[in-house]
Amino acid sequence: MKIAMLGSGFIARFYADSLIGHRRIDKLHAVYSRNIEKARTFATDYGLPVYSDSLEEVVNNPEVNVVVISLPNDLHLAAVEACAKAGKHVLCTKPLGRTAAEAKQMLDMVEKAGIMGGYLEDLCYTPKFSKSLASVKGGSLGRILWAKSREAHPGPHSNWFWNKEQSGGGAIVDLGCHCIEIARNYIGKDVRPVEVMCWAATQVHPIDAEDNAIGMVKYANGAIGQFEVSWCFRGGMDLRDEVMGTEGTIWINNFLRTGFDMFSTGKEGGYVAEKAESNTGWLFPVGDEVNELGYNHMFTDMFEAIEQNRDPFETFYDGYVVNAIIDAAYASAKSGLWEPVEIDDWRGRTDDNHGAKFAEFDEQYYLIKEEILPHGERKLILKDKKTGEVIVRDL
Amino acid sequence: MKIAMLGSGFIARFYADSLIGHRRIDKLHAVYSRNIEKARTFATDYGLPVYSDSLEEVVNNPEVNVVVISLPNDLHLAAVEACAKAGKHVLCTKPLGRTAAEAKQMLDMVEKAGIMGGYLEDLCYTPKFSKSLASVKGGSLGRILWAKSREAHPGPHSNWFWNKEQSGGGAIVDLGCHCIEIARNYIGKDVRPVEVMCWAATQVHPIDAEDNAIGMVKYANGAIGQFEVSWCFRGGMDLRDEVMGTEGTIWINNFLRTGFDMFSTGKEGGYVAEKAESNTGWLFPVGDEVNELGYNHMFTDMFEAIEQNRDPFETFYDGYVVNAIIDAAYASAKSGLWEPVEIDDWRGRTDDNHGAKFAEFDEQYYLIKEEILPHGERKLILKDKKTGEVIVRDL
Amino acid sequence: MKIAMLGSGFIARFYADSLIGHRRIDKLHAVYSRNIEKARTFATDYGLPVYSDSLEEVVNNPEVNVVVISLPNDLHLAAVEACAKAGKHVLCTKPLGRTAAEAKQMLDMVEKAGIMGGYLEDLCYTPKFSKSLASVKGGSLGRILWAKSREAHPGPHSNWFWNKEQSGGGAIVDLGCHCIEIARNYIGKDVRPVEVMCWAATQVHPIDAEDNAIGMVKYANGAIGQFEVSWCFRGGMDLRDEVMGTEGTIWINNFLRTGFDMFSTGKEGGYVAEKAESNTGWLFPVGDEVNELGYNHMFTDMFEAIEQNRDPFETFYDGYVVNAIIDAAYASAKSGLWEPVEIDDWRGRTDDNHGAKFAEFDEQYYLIKEEILPHGERKLILKDKKTGEVIVRDL
Amino acid sequence: MKIAMLGSGFIARFYADSLIGHRRIDKLHAVYSRNIEKARTFATDYGLPVYSDSLEEVVNNPEVNVVVISLPNDLHLAAVEACAKAGKHVLCTKPLGRTAAEAKQMLDMVEKAGIMGGYLEDLCYTPKFSKSLASVKGGSLGRILWAKSREAHPGPHSNWFWNKEQSGGGAIVDLGCHCIEIARNYIGKDVRPVEVMCWAATQVHPIDAEDNAIGMVKYANGAIGQFEVSWCFRGGMDLRDEVMGTEGTIWINNFLRTGFDMFSTGKEGGYVAEKAESNTGWLFPVGDEVNELGYNHMFTDMFEAIEQNRDPFETFYDGYVVNAIIDAAYASAKSGLWEPVEIDDWRGRTDDNHGAKFAEFDEQYYLIKEEILPHGERKLILKDKKTGEVIVRDL
Repeated sequence: MKIAMLGSGFIARFYADSLIGHRRIDKLHAVYSRNIEKARTFATDYGLPVYSDSLEEVVNNPEVNVVVISLPNDLHLAAVEACAKAGKHVLCTKPLGRTAAEAKQMLDMVEKAGIMGGYLEDLCYTPKFSKSLASVKGGSLGRILWAKSREAHPGPHSNWFWNKEQSGGGAIVDLGCHCIEIARNYIGKDVRPVEVMCWAATQVHPIDAEDNAIGMVKYANGAIGQFEVSWCFRGGMDLRDEVMGTEGTIWINNFLRTGFDMFSTGKEGGYVAEKAESNTGWLFPVGDEVNELGYNHMFTDMFEAIEQNRDPFETFYDGYVVNAIIDAAYASAKSGLWEPVEIDDWRGRTDDNHGAKFAEFDEQYYLIKEEILPHGERKLILKDKKTGEVIVRDL
Repeated sequence: MKIAMLGSGFIARFYADSLIGHRRIDKLHAVYSRNIEKARTFATDYGLPVYSDSLEEVVNNPEVNVVVISLPNDLHLAAVEACAKAGKHVLCTKPLGRTAAEAKQMLDMVEKAGIMGGYLEDLCYTPKFSKSLASVKGGSLGRILWAKSREAHPGPHSNWFWNKEQSGGGAIVDLGCHCIEIARNYIGKDVRPVEVMCWAATQVHPIDAEDNAIGMVKYANGAIGQFEVSWCFRGGMDLRDEVMGTEGTIWINNFLRTGFDMFSTGKEGGYVAEKAESNTGWLFPVGDEVNELGYNHMFTDMFEAIEQNRDPFETFYDGYVVNAIIDAAYASAKSGLWEPVEIDDWRGRTDDNHGAKFAEFDEQYYLIKEEILPHGERKLILKDKKTGEVIVRDL
Repeated sequence: MKIAMLGSGFIARFYADSLIGHRRIDKLHAVYSRNIEKARTFATDYGLPVYSDSLEEVVNNPEVNVVVISLPNDLHLAAVEACAKAGKHVLCTKPLGRTAAEAKQMLDMVEKAGIMGGYLEDLCYTPKFSKSLASVKGGSLGRILWAKSREAHPGPHSNWFWNKEQSGGGAIVDLGCHCIEIARNYIGKDVRPVEVMCWAATQVHPIDAEDNAIGMVKYANGAIGQFEVSWCFRGGMDLRDEVMGTEGTIWINNFLRTGFDMFSTGKEGGYVAEKAESNTGWLFPVGDEVNELGYNHMFTDMFEAIEQNRDPFETFYDGYVVNAIIDAAYASAKSGLWEPVEIDDWRGRTDDNHGAKFAEFDEQYYLIKEEILPHGERKLILKDKKTGEVIVRDL
Repeated sequence: MKIAMLGSGFIARFYADSLIGHRRIDKLHAVYSRNIEKARTFATDYGLPVYSDSLEEVVNNPEVNVVVISLPNDLHLAAVEACAKAGKHVLCTKPLGRTAAEAKQMLDMVEKAGIMGGYLEDLCYTPKFSKSLASVKGGSLGRILWAKSREAHPGPHSNWFWNKEQSGGGAIVDLGCHCIEIARNYIGKDVRPVEVMCWAATQVHPIDAEDNAIGMVKYANGAIGQFEVSWCFRGGMDLRDEVMGTEGTIWINNFLRTGFDMFSTGKEGGYVAEKAESNTGWLFPVGDEVNELGYNHMFTDMFEAIEQNRDPFETFYDGYVVNAIIDAAYASAKSGLWEPVEIDDWRGRTDDNHGAKFAEFDEQYYLIKEEILPHGERKLILKDKKTGEVIVRDL
């Protein structure tokens, strides 16, 4: 497949690295940047035959099959529109829109045009995430009760992120989109997110948007998703997930503690580990960042989906649902209330299976807990189904 | 000092272990239990001359200087009353009361009687906590933005915990009291907790109280405390704290990852590590549990406080503030609203210093961020104080 | 490039997974197995047009450009001979030979035939290894003093490993080949390995070869390489490296602690994590095993080397040096003496720069250490160059 | 008990901290230092009534029951002699002697005088060590095959350590004494250490003694002890143990990764974590160093042993055995040969139970391994007891 890249900044280069790495059959063919110089540099660095500062020219290039959007958030809609018009498959970086309304427009465009809309949510493609999700789906954790994802670092590198108009918000829209979709996958994409409570504040930076936020997302089956996002974290990039099920637990650390520790006095200069705040003292580099962050696996899925004429693992619809949750989070941060998640077009389950299933002991009792005491004796803590009385039975 | 123990259960034994360990000059002298058999066993196990099923008898024993309350939550008030009447210093296990109203009564009693009321919040005395708090107070983390504490395990061992009437609630009152006071210490005990948002649910156990909850506590200076508590966690006892400041980060793991890993096939039987859910596979024991959980250091502070006629590090007033926050958490879990923390008798700072201090760049600009790019170039992201415009300046 | 696979067992499948993953331009074309059934199954599973139980047929298939040897150790020599005769580039799994003599024959064959001999030492291509080696080469660790690599697990899966005749030995030849080459890379491939001391024992399994061994390799510049290998380890696959330099430290954990922790009661069945000894309790899966073990990056380097007509990062010459060190290790395990490493054809540096460079303080003194005392005072510990006297100077 | 301290340096203060902490019944009474000013300062800091620069005066003080030796290695012998003459129990810091001959003299002195000779090997009293040793003794790890202990840091703080005459050597005698006794405990104190192979070098510091060494100690039952010691390590204090048994594994990390991580930009100054090489970046403090390093538990055992008229856990005899192993290590480092451990007075088991017990499968076969294949099939790898043939049997 021949690919056009829209954008030539930090994320475009990350995408290009994963598209070129490991001798892929898919080729980057053209690049668009608003700044022709940047487009030229990008084309030179990655060996692309075509570059331009005209988005239409790039999208409509006859050799291009697929378009990758790595532009600032406020330019996604127009870019998707151009792809839809040209009938080219489109892969859009996260978040899909600045709002659910924008995302819904993009979703409608690709569905109407009959092209594939792939949502480039790389963190739902990391090797650790994929394997852990398989475990969850396979039942290793039982019923999922809580899924938390945390992303925090000292703030974004590109200036447009700091402009609320362009980005659509602060840490929530920038980092929360990852965390929300991670939790949603663990809980189940077919389970409806119902309402959101969010705290957000501008604690450190002189900006209009939030630089620190915590949110809780209630799902129709009683599970809870949680996101913790910050542009105020010191120490590098903190990227961790936790899942709690009735039968198990998952802890994932994607960055700062991955089994790679380095100490350097820095006396002899030397190599700087990326995203670290320093190149001396204890450092925690990541082996192959592009792989650990899921880019390789994401593009593999996207291109196979196109060839196999199936949906990719992360679609524009997923991006739209995430935007709807983000909208509710912003509303809640403002109102201080649990705010409903407005999804016009819910495609998942509609039976709300709220109830926790209590463990039966016998006809009369529920089992609260079986306890092993320090000296090895065992006891049962039971609850009478009718009277509610809690009793203890030694074994 | 001669000490009376009220209660003879799990926590009483933990306390006794730390009072006896390391050849202390302070001696356990008497024990009370509602069940005379349990009192006798306890007295035998720890070599106490006096045991009784009369609380008054034990409290009023003339040799007793200090009373330790390790009774179920619903019996704290009456026990404190007996101590106040007898004029004996009293150390009470956590939570102080089931409600702030109960806690306030206890606080008033000890203050009126002129005795010391020590709040046995052991997790604010762990070696890791003490050293990290010293770092925070010393400025290593700058201004504290967020402090989170998590305590989760598969549920309590004693049956009275499962009875809401006796315990005063579920995981929030049982585990949240720890987490709340940990975060409050990091943020500053003199900073007023203002309001609380809490989600709570009964997800797994057939009980009336919550077995899973997440709460956020807003402080007057704009910092946020967070607690995550659960009786549904699988894998042992999860006890972790995280603190985020403008200049640094703290991560503490008190139990499951402390640098002690063991794998056993279990084929040859062998020793069971406490609190683990199993004695085969990968296990994560804690070296000296009594020490790691802060009991030694807590009692050392309490007895020295009595001798030096000073307040201990954790007082009945602290216990009362914690109960007030818990009350607000329960109110919020019910109403879905941010609920105010009602403290009749606030003794801390009253100047609400909400504002984040933005980093000045020069007269015209705030500094948003200084960025080091992959190839070593540096740039400044600045914000115009008047126009709000974000600009980039290369260095 | 079109690739022939010789062998269809465990390692052949690992290779095939990495050759097929991520939409590579290089294609597996043919497979040889001594067992035609296994060859057929392999061809079906990976979509290969050609399979055979004739090695010559596969190697000489006109479409095949490159041959990958994933056969038992005793069959490497004959397979390399066939490739040399056919003039096909050959990539051989580790260890290259059972002995240095065998490895030398293979090296001579490929050099004479003018084909590329790639040594498939995947652990020298893992993302963590590559990045840490770049740091070492960049000077972050100063002068390397010691490099240790450890590989231990409960024993190999294929039966031929347990037959000393076929494999050439036990844990040393199976696992030590990795560890030796890892340490050699950190210390410098151009630094001559001089002599080896090795302890080896058969501690658990009823076999002729060793199932546990520790070795030390002295290098001409005074650095020391260390390997720890075992088929007796319980708890999964232990794969760790440590490097000590004058200015820094590296710790790498490739398997059991990579930031992915899972606990499962196993009650609901579920997914089994590979290489774990169990699927309940605390488990430590690896995200993308093929990537973490370096297979992707290894084949990328190999094919690019062929195209660019350059040496790959790991060559048959490297394999030969490793075999020479293994020979010395076996000799030492038998004799109890430091045994010389016999390399006929040393291609690295011949100046033996043994000496540690001591830190100068001034004309009269060396600096032993600058010490910061608990209260912040600083002192210098110095040694008189002539008299050897150690003195202390307060600062 | 009233205690005299001989010495007032770094280790004397560590001992004093643990003797005073946690309101002990045992009291420090007198201190001796060769430098009267240092003695006075120590007495003031710890509230001691007696100080002196006469060793005899302090040892013979009539109130003193027990003497703690925390003097440089070359002064241990004379101090023990004084205690023996005075009939005072004596606790001596590690290593006991500079050589086994010295240690033997001390052992003979205390045994002849009928006083207790306690060997202050604190690392055999750490909470993690004690609990893991209990697991090993309880059978959780099966038969112990290998026990490794590593201690490494950037070099000692006191200048006399750097003088080979005073200290008796370098990193081996300073740090190796800990590592050797740790491994010996895991393998079994009653199992005779037979011979030692050791590599040692002076890699960095301008000293006569070694600053880096690795040693292997063969035990009569076929187990192997390993020590890794260094004064060249960068990054703080590396203190780790590993044990491998037929049924399990233990990994202990005492310092740099104990579940306490801190990052600080250092901008606001702040608290310096001990033994760290810096107070900015990622730091890994230890909560309560005195406790984590075993001092509290060690003195508790020592004083209880005196009261109960029993041997402490670590005796002068243990110190002597350790010195004998160190002597063999130095001999081996010089000769390059496995050197015998010379113990005049072996008090442990004399039956050498070398043999590994192979796992029986049936009358004809040994079981090499039971293997679970990726798709769930199971196979047995067996060895014919007579013919030695390895066969595979599918299950």
